[in-house]
Amino acid sequence: MSQANPQLNARGGLQHLLTIEGLPQEIVRHILDTAGSFVGIGEREVKKVPLLRGKSVFNLFFENSTRTRTTFEIAAKRLSADVINLNVNTSSTTKGESLLDTVDNLAAMNADMFVVRHAQSGAPHLIARHVRSQPHLHVVNAGDGRHAHPTQGLLDAYTIRHYKRDFAHLSVAIVGDILHSRVARSLIQVLRTLGTPDVRVIAPQTLLPTGIEGMGVKVFHDVEKGLRETDVIVMLRLQNERMRGPLLPSAQEFFKTYGLTAERLALARPDAIVMHPGPMNRGVEIDSLVADGGQSVILPQVTFGIAVRMAVMSILAGGS
Amino acid sequence: MSQANPQLNARGGLQHLLTIEGLPQEIVRHILDTAGSFVGIGEREVKKVPLLRGKSVFNLFFENSTRTRTTFEIAAKRLSADVINLNVNTSSTTKGESLLDTVDNLAAMNADMFVVRHAQSGAPHLIARHVRSQPHLHVVNAGDGRHAHPTQGLLDAYTIRHYKRDFAHLSVAIVGDILHSRVARSLIQVLRTLGTPDVRVIAPQTLLPTGIEGMGVKVFHDVEKGLRETDVIVMLRLQNERMRGPLLPSAQEFFKTYGLTAERLALARPDAIVMHPGPMNRGVEIDSLVADGGQSVILPQVTFGIAVRMAVMSILAGGS
Amino acid sequence: MSQANPQLNARGGLQHLLTIEGLPQEIVRHILDTAGSFVGIGEREVKKVPLLRGKSVFNLFFENSTRTRTTFEIAAKRLSADVINLNVNTSSTTKGESLLDTVDNLAAMNADMFVVRHAQSGAPHLIARHVRSQPHLHVVNAGDGRHAHPTQGLLDAYTIRHYKRDFAHLSVAIVGDILHSRVARSLIQVLRTLGTPDVRVIAPQTLLPTGIEGMGVKVFHDVEKGLRETDVIVMLRLQNERMRGPLLPSAQEFFKTYGLTAERLALARPDAIVMHPGPMNRGVEIDSLVADGGQSVILPQVTFGIAVRMAVMSILAGGS
Repeated sequence: MSQANPQLNARGGLQHLLTIEGLPQEIVRHILDTAGSFVGIGEREVKKVPLLRGKSVFNLFFENSTRTRTTFEIAAKRLSADVINLNVNTSSTTKGESLLDTVDNLAAMNADMFVVRHAQSGAPHLIARHVRSQPHLHVVNAGDGRHAHPTQGLLDAYTIRHYKRDFAHLSVAIVGDILHSRVARSLIQVLRTLGTPDVRVIAPQTLLPTGIEGMGVKVFHDVEKGLRETDVIVMLRLQNERMRGPLLPSAQEFFKTYGLTAERLALARPDAIVMHPGPMNRGVEIDSLVADGGQSVILPQVTFGIAVRMAVMSILAGGS
Repeated sequence: MSQANPQLNARGGLQHLLTIEGLPQEIVRHILDTAGSFVGIGEREVKKVPLLRGKSVFNLFFENSTRTRTTFEIAAKRLSADVINLNVNTSSTTKGESLLDTVDNLAAMNADMFVVRHAQSGAPHLIARHVRSQPHLHVVNAGDGRHAHPTQGLLDAYTIRHYKRDFAHLSVAIVGDILHSRVARSLIQVLRTLGTPDVRVIAPQTLLPTGIEGMGVKVFHDVEKGLRETDVIVMLRLQNERMRGPLLPSAQEFFKTYGLTAERLALARPDAIVMHPGPMNRGVEIDSLVADGGQSVILPQVTFGIAVRMAVMSILAGGS
Repeated sequence: MSQANPQLNARGGLQHLLTIEGLPQEIVRHILDTAGSFVGIGEREVKKVPLLRGKSVFNLFFENSTRTRTTFEIAAKRLSADVINLNVNTSSTTKGESLLDTVDNLAAMNADMFVVRHAQSGAPHLIARHVRSQPHLHVVNAGDGRHAHPTQGLLDAYTIRHYKRDFAHLSVAIVGDILHSRVARSLIQVLRTLGTPDVRVIAPQTLLPTGIEGMGVKVFHDVEKGLRETDVIVMLRLQNERMRGPLLPSAQEFFKTYGLTAERLALARPDAIVMHPGPMNRGVEIDSLVADGGQSVILPQVTFGIAVRMAVMSILAGGS
């Protein structure tokens, strides 16, 4: 691993996918182009290619997420890998084994790839650093704390490129709980990497991290102002479990102030697309009419997400 | 999907398997004949055929049942499908995602088949109706509420046909908790579809649904009278978890009044066979001597059940 | 199954792997030699051989152990078997189905192999005896109560042979909670079978089973005396969950009296190797410096463990 960027190997190739931050634009574009070649596989009779045949992929989920785990499981199986699912909170960590001992153990079973989900920011980095002497071993961050969710950012970028072709003149609005959202962080980074000129975040002050302007975005508190003339609207999930505190009055109040309704959508460009990382809270951050409407590309995001994960996995492990 | 029968496609072929009710006799016979060709595969060195290679089968279990899930998982793997197990109660529904959003999401991952188990009657129908615009997508009901368990009904029919050849002169008794049993409903329907002249239900009044005679069965409250001269006896599981109410005094009392003992079995025809959908409560609905005796075909039911599920899956997804 | 030894078939071949006890030395050597041929597969691009293609392997875990289950799952998948994981405590046993009914049921699904983990000593034997009329069906004990963990014993033996070549002049020390350890029992038996002249157990009296000398070992209470001039040191896991009683004062106290430190390791031969079955309690039975040090072969044990399990599975089911 290079010192400068722990996810690149000495030749500048992708060794791990930990974060969008610092990822060269060529690598991002290469992932999106490769994903494009995988989209067609999902529509075939036999949805399988042998690129990872005989490889062992471990879904190492320290935080439960059936939904995300499923997308990686399908992607790996369509690449013909052997997949092992490990929900580690119910396993050896309860026996007091440390994270890195678990990793060493699985690595000794001749693992090829770890797909890691962890409630703590930085856990995938820690693992990648720990296995740095084993170049055949690759780590994919499937979401760590509030830090990053790079495959989500990449699938968002793939979706935008699919519908809008080019990032050079785009205006993208991200609406909702930016503060707790690794999705928002990864999306902002990938949009900046691809040269999007106008990235906006729309949220109450209490749901914005301090210094967010430093990421190159414009801040709006007023959703009507923020959505005006945008090409892409990304609604974030309002995580109810985090709303127990004094940050927000209620879900109904949030919908009234920030929820995406048909009226608000009409403020954006007529051909604007609506995205959401899922799972949606209908009637909280998004109105059902909009979620199911003609401008919504929420389900294509899911389809492209499989192709993007196949692309990342095949770039990491397919060529070694 | 045709309006008249949501499980048939426009050409009258099987699009989903939701219930035995209304299923044409030719389709039932086609499933049983196809299952016959799969029974041999289970005895081979290599128990695998490539009929579903590269297809994605989702076991969508909203109600936990390792036993049933395992039979579908094995059937799908022997057809070479990629299988994804989802216990949905522990997953995104806890995040407030609706059933149909979950289904849309998985469909967008290019699913080919959903095997659905749900505590609520009608859930598989709801899913089938929801995906009706996607003809490549098939739904199999693996048990919904008190409504139906069609693959169980079909494997019961396969077992009876295996031992008795023909349904035209058969007398079949179903004994026990008819009221709560989707197994009983599906079995009665498949027996009627195949022209069984004498189908009896034997139970106390409290364990019979009102209007059961409308299904074309004869009702007996006295087990000794009901079993007389029958060719097939199907004992139902007494679901202890449902026996908390005033419906029945106790398991011992039930065994005394309705349990299948060697003495009671002797009232049936000498070559009568004994069936049970499992898991058995030995000493509650059935005596161990009978369960393990020469007339029991309870384990062959399990073997045939794999072949029947392979048949259903290959008819649904193998030819598309 | 022969009467004399339930795990051998009539021709003296391996039918089940239940315990090391009574296993002929030729069979132990054959397993280790076969494992040797599998070690290389883990390092290949395509880590897969078709020896168990189309076979159904059931991981029947009545006691939860993600770690052990994973090793068998990987081994089976690398042999191209179809693997079904069953955590049986959460399944039909909660519905009151007996162990042997569960086994009959799975056998009726044309299972080829059961990998059984159970909290009760003897459960895998019980299952093997129950399926004795089905010679195509094989049982592997993956740990039963305090009784045996034969694949662990075999992988320990493989590791020792790898580093020390020959057992004829070896001195091996096993340190810690011998009383509760099926690992210790299986290891002692395999070492005796392979002719190891000097096997020592080092533990306080309270953690030794009565009559341990009958297994052909020397007992030491003083760790410094016991380690002297040994070639191999095997540290056992101190199972905290069993330490609630009056057997031991505390983890710190244990480390002080029996934990393997660099100073104590220096008492052994200069080329002594350090082993541990995992998961480790760093700072309880072993110091981190030793666990990660140059004499530790704890991670190679894991790697060899996959090869040993592939060897056992292929000998049992690959040739039938």
